[in-house]
Amino acid sequence: MNKLIALAAALVVLAASALAHEAPRWRKAIALPELPGYVTLKCDFHIHTVFSDGLVWPTVRAEEAWREGLDAIAITDHIEHQPHKADMVKNHNRAHQIAKGLGDELKVLVVAGSEITRAMPPGHLNAIFLTNATPLETELWRDAIDAAHQQGAFIFWNHPGWERQLSNGVVRWHPEHTELLEAGKLHGIEVVNGRAYYPEAHRWALEKNLALLSNSDIHQPMHMDYQLHTGDHRPVTLVFARDRSPAALKEALFARRTAVYAANRLIGRAEYLRPIFERSVTLDRPTVKLPPRKAVLVQVSNASEVAYQLELVAAPAGCTAPARLTLPGQRTALLELKAAPPNTPVGDGTALTYRVANLLVAPDQPLVVNLPLTITPPAR
Amino acid sequence: MNKLIALAAALVVLAASALAHEAPRWRKAIALPELPGYVTLKCDFHIHTVFSDGLVWPTVRAEEAWREGLDAIAITDHIEHQPHKADMVKNHNRAHQIAKGLGDELKVLVVAGSEITRAMPPGHLNAIFLTNATPLETELWRDAIDAAHQQGAFIFWNHPGWERQLSNGVVRWHPEHTELLEAGKLHGIEVVNGRAYYPEAHRWALEKNLALLSNSDIHQPMHMDYQLHTGDHRPVTLVFARDRSPAALKEALFARRTAVYAANRLIGRAEYLRPIFERSVTLDRPTVKLPPRKAVLVQVSNASEVAYQLELVAAPAGCTAPARLTLPGQRTALLELKAAPPNTPVGDGTALTYRVANLLVAPDQPLVVNLPLTITPPAR
Amino acid sequence: MNKLIALAAALVVLAASALAHEAPRWRKAIALPELPGYVTLKCDFHIHTVFSDGLVWPTVRAEEAWREGLDAIAITDHIEHQPHKADMVKNHNRAHQIAKGLGDELKVLVVAGSEITRAMPPGHLNAIFLTNATPLETELWRDAIDAAHQQGAFIFWNHPGWERQLSNGVVRWHPEHTELLEAGKLHGIEVVNGRAYYPEAHRWALEKNLALLSNSDIHQPMHMDYQLHTGDHRPVTLVFARDRSPAALKEALFARRTAVYAANRLIGRAEYLRPIFERSVTLDRPTVKLPPRKAVLVQVSNASEVAYQLELVAAPAGCTAPARLTLPGQRTALLELKAAPPNTPVGDGTALTYRVANLLVAPDQPLVVNLPLTITPPAR
Amino acid sequence: MNKLIALAAALVVLAASALAHEAPRWRKAIALPELPGYVTLKCDFHIHTVFSDGLVWPTVRAEEAWREGLDAIAITDHIEHQPHKADMVKNHNRAHQIAKGLGDELKVLVVAGSEITRAMPPGHLNAIFLTNATPLETELWRDAIDAAHQQGAFIFWNHPGWERQLSNGVVRWHPEHTELLEAGKLHGIEVVNGRAYYPEAHRWALEKNLALLSNSDIHQPMHMDYQLHTGDHRPVTLVFARDRSPAALKEALFARRTAVYAANRLIGRAEYLRPIFERSVTLDRPTVKLPPRKAVLVQVSNASEVAYQLELVAAPAGCTAPARLTLPGQRTALLELKAAPPNTPVGDGTALTYRVANLLVAPDQPLVVNLPLTITPPAR
Repeated sequence: MNKLIALAAALVVLAASALAHEAPRWRKAIALPELPGYVTLKCDFHIHTVFSDGLVWPTVRAEEAWREGLDAIAITDHIEHQPHKADMVKNHNRAHQIAKGLGDELKVLVVAGSEITRAMPPGHLNAIFLTNATPLETELWRDAIDAAHQQGAFIFWNHPGWERQLSNGVVRWHPEHTELLEAGKLHGIEVVNGRAYYPEAHRWALEKNLALLSNSDIHQPMHMDYQLHTGDHRPVTLVFARDRSPAALKEALFARRTAVYAANRLIGRAEYLRPIFERSVTLDRPTVKLPPRKAVLVQVSNASEVAYQLELVAAPAGCTAPARLTLPGQRTALLELKAAPPNTPVGDGTALTYRVANLLVAPDQPLVVNLPLTITPPAR
Repeated sequence: MNKLIALAAALVVLAASALAHEAPRWRKAIALPELPGYVTLKCDFHIHTVFSDGLVWPTVRAEEAWREGLDAIAITDHIEHQPHKADMVKNHNRAHQIAKGLGDELKVLVVAGSEITRAMPPGHLNAIFLTNATPLETELWRDAIDAAHQQGAFIFWNHPGWERQLSNGVVRWHPEHTELLEAGKLHGIEVVNGRAYYPEAHRWALEKNLALLSNSDIHQPMHMDYQLHTGDHRPVTLVFARDRSPAALKEALFARRTAVYAANRLIGRAEYLRPIFERSVTLDRPTVKLPPRKAVLVQVSNASEVAYQLELVAAPAGCTAPARLTLPGQRTALLELKAAPPNTPVGDGTALTYRVANLLVAPDQPLVVNLPLTITPPAR
Repeated sequence: MNKLIALAAALVVLAASALAHEAPRWRKAIALPELPGYVTLKCDFHIHTVFSDGLVWPTVRAEEAWREGLDAIAITDHIEHQPHKADMVKNHNRAHQIAKGLGDELKVLVVAGSEITRAMPPGHLNAIFLTNATPLETELWRDAIDAAHQQGAFIFWNHPGWERQLSNGVVRWHPEHTELLEAGKLHGIEVVNGRAYYPEAHRWALEKNLALLSNSDIHQPMHMDYQLHTGDHRPVTLVFARDRSPAALKEALFARRTAVYAANRLIGRAEYLRPIFERSVTLDRPTVKLPPRKAVLVQVSNASEVAYQLELVAAPAGCTAPARLTLPGQRTALLELKAAPPNTPVGDGTALTYRVANLLVAPDQPLVVNLPLTITPPAR
Repeated sequence: MNKLIALAAALVVLAASALAHEAPRWRKAIALPELPGYVTLKCDFHIHTVFSDGLVWPTVRAEEAWREGLDAIAITDHIEHQPHKADMVKNHNRAHQIAKGLGDELKVLVVAGSEITRAMPPGHLNAIFLTNATPLETELWRDAIDAAHQQGAFIFWNHPGWERQLSNGVVRWHPEHTELLEAGKLHGIEVVNGRAYYPEAHRWALEKNLALLSNSDIHQPMHMDYQLHTGDHRPVTLVFARDRSPAALKEALFARRTAVYAANRLIGRAEYLRPIFERSVTLDRPTVKLPPRKAVLVQVSNASEVAYQLELVAAPAGCTAPARLTLPGQRTALLELKAAPPNTPVGDGTALTYRVANLLVAPDQPLVVNLPLTITPPAR
């Protein structure tokens, strides 16, 4: 039968529901595996609203976070930069209060914060877990930071590579940053802000034991900056917390248990990235016995939403493996293995080793992984 | 900071991988929960290739099935209808042999079948699990069915509501179908074929204990008939099997453990549909205590890919619940509950009961479900 | 050659630009043909901001309008409903001033307006083309409307079928509406508001010669209510104006030269809908001579973005045409014509006539069109 | 009004048509402007079917071409490589005959061709516009080419950078190619094959006056290799022909009036690329008078589907223009111009000049364009 012609009496033509034409009030989870002993909180700690130079009412930030699968956000309006002041009643605590109302209903943690917005040094710093933002409005930046510190705030350096605050085009770590670090008043650094990644900040975070942060610094409605329907997403900070409480979130931040998830990249210490990769990826078999000529197709499933980009480091002796392999998120890909051609020199390797180009444990240093596969080449 | 301006020295602009521009050789699973004691095999038992009037080489069918998340297919080229015969060497077993080669590599079960293509009655019937299709080429249709039956084939009636084979515009169950049924030579019926659903076939399947089947009857490359990237999908038969073997698949079919999944609908016996729904849906809390005025937002997560379309049957006394609620696949939706207005008559119901409009246990009879939620209205 | 294997020395693997991962500051035109003598302005005259109960800063409304291909918007914050008043300085003119700044830069006309927000009757009315919104804050609704009228405003009734303002569940035209109409103080009516279409309002608009309006009444960022990437779009009012100036826009509104474009529907007088359809659709030939048996495939191109849904009214004598045909936007579809079967009774029709189910000239009354095709059936 | 609640009596909730769930038998045009005096035929001259090692019936190739907006294709099955020979009756002319049947109905030109499939040199060559492919089955490759040449065929070298036919990893132009060229038996060369671009072939095409070709070499159903719904597309050869006839197509090919369109790139002689760019792009004004401080947003519309990637070469004296600007296809982008800062050295340039990174007139040589804009900086 080449064609079905509909007849009212006999059949019903099936049409799926037109979901594409409802107001989409839905949460889409960020698909990443959990680490043993922790919940992975997906967070954005740098967000603006109409209460400074942002363009949305604070509730929008809670709603966006819920829809995009986030667990926690901080509203961090500028203390010093208030371009809407002719139209709004100044209150540095108000945006948080408003956003928290909807956040509580939606079970999104909304943390109180402020952006201390100063010339370099020290540049812009966010203080989160504030109890009262008002005392941060001071003349001297040290006083603002002290006010935050006295409230037990978690303090981090924003967008260190921001062009307008470079020193002759170069990102610099100033003595003032050392001062803050040594006084225990600087706890983290934005390695990613919006669509920018700062390798220098990444290096400093590792050297100086700062929490790696990844935040949107969003001012507009989120959809104006990110094409969410294509898989594009705001940068988030992954926080490995003991539970979903504000206290656990704060503890984890001070303990530096964080990683960056931005633009299909994971950036962080290997102790976090390795289990994320290993718990994302499953192979359809533990062993492969290579026949002399035919290829074997190993099915590699990736339960996370990150598309892992593998580049071959070493294949076991006698085995030919693909130089590159993409493991798209929430899909199964094929790893094609073959016996090495007869005249190829045979090494003594045993593992199938790839670097994951988009998982960075340090600047320009991808995570290296062995696929859990024992490969037996044909006898020669 | 309103805008980041890129500076080569200081930052790297992040771009996600251009996955949209690779050849997409990936499998996407069909997301449906498993039933206790069974694996759910997603199957399509009605498929054509160039070996009858189809338009693709048989390997394409294995590849399509793998990419679309199917576990088993049957190649069922017409015995009697051979429009390509001037160009091809006739061999009723060949399409299966070729497709099985790639199916084995990809771990897709490829079952041998044929479409016995006759005038009504009995119309077109598929016989699958054949050992040799050649003897099905006979003059009389009874001989063809006997040949299949002697090989232990599972035999089903295709597209009973097909317009070209109706009797004065009406779908009819003919004495010949009774004859086959009583002789144990008719085991299933297509309730869905392509985009058509046949309520009469659905009724007969229930009355006469036939396996409910849902097949594509595809002739073209799959993408020409289904817009897979939009969530559109070929109809599949869900088979609840003891394991993934051909034997278990066959046993389950003869035991009628099947359901239909087509165009965002599930059709089948309540014993299968109910656990699929219940295992798909999770609520973020077991109990709700309604405050007098404010709404409560219960988060309802749907792990399956089916967008469940709920229509209210009854709410507990004192509670107002939405008349309609869509639970999109792999998303979390919000169920907004409120205390009923003060002057509303209060019934004595206790459960929150919905019908799921796109889960059919019989024609025009949706599955009715109680959401697992104990709701306490405010004291009045 | 079955497969290309990349070799750095010899080739470059092509990847398209990752446009999906840029901030999408782009305008997408609304594709509809122009009527002779007019420009079609795409408008939304019912929009909220943080200055009443909306959730975005006014500039966002200009930016959204530009991106979505609109030519003109009115900011119409509530005069009486000011839930943000604790945080904002009240100024009924301010939202327009702010939005107009960006509108001017982007060449989007931003018209000053207000929503007079009263109990029924007369319900909610928008007044646009105001010169000063402050005098609209009055105790009595008649005074507010008079204030607008004295400024030369265009005044229309919002969402007449809004549930909270029905009379025992029924939409009513009240004496107060007659009073306004007869005094020349009511010029238009929302036939569509958001996702709701009001057939009664449609009828009244035709009977009483009111401008048909279609507005979003948007409160959230647009993407939260409309899934723009799927073809979902906010409702817009089409205004057929002499040029792109504010004066021409106003003249056209008072002259009732408008139509509704919402959810893939066009609603309006036939004098506007017919040329839109006729100028959208092109056939690849003017005449068809039907052969006795073979079908002829006429290519029907639709330059607009509306997917026209055709339902057959009458085919010429001796010709069989499809009962239904969708002409998707910016695509070419196939119209399959065949000679009628030999024994079919032959009428005396000559034109191929369809109704366009989603083009409404009155409630339940689709536009009827003849396709520009002369069809000659085979001799009998 | 914050929320509309639907009431059956009063309104109809609008849902757009569920186009996403119809079989998509629609043609989508390739949006590129026409050159003066020519029609741009979009062509793919390297296509396989089941009649050699392809995986679809020939009609599928005509249907795919029609849907994807192509005007002409050549079916070019291998003469020498016949892996389906056990199942198919060999006939080198048959695939073209079958595809042409549907092509004629759909108005897609289907040209007869064959792939002469030999070891290097000369490698694989396609001969198109054959009248009979049978005589191409010869022992010696020179005889095969002569047979094609005697039929007036257009002959081109396929995938010159194909890894399996390189000489020690290097693409080589062999004396045999010179022999063919000098004998007038080699007329074109694939600069793009599938996802591979061959800079060497590009260079040779320019040096030796060969037609630049860009073909898919498709074996599978098109959707298996290209994610068409994302904007991914098969490579096509643009042929600038006098009309849509086969004769005009052939004349244009022999006259070398071709360009490459592949993976969002245009590759070809500047005489073709420049007018394509210039006729794609419109600015919303011819002149800009820069104010001292404020930026001016010039709207740049791109009617083509190519996303032009602009990189700044030079801005007029006193004007700051963006270093990079993407002009997405069928969208309007914003070109932000500013007066140069007061202390900037001022050159004497007058034009705003960009290179278009994805329009290549030679390997590594993008097209350079002046935007049609006269810019007056503020007086200094």
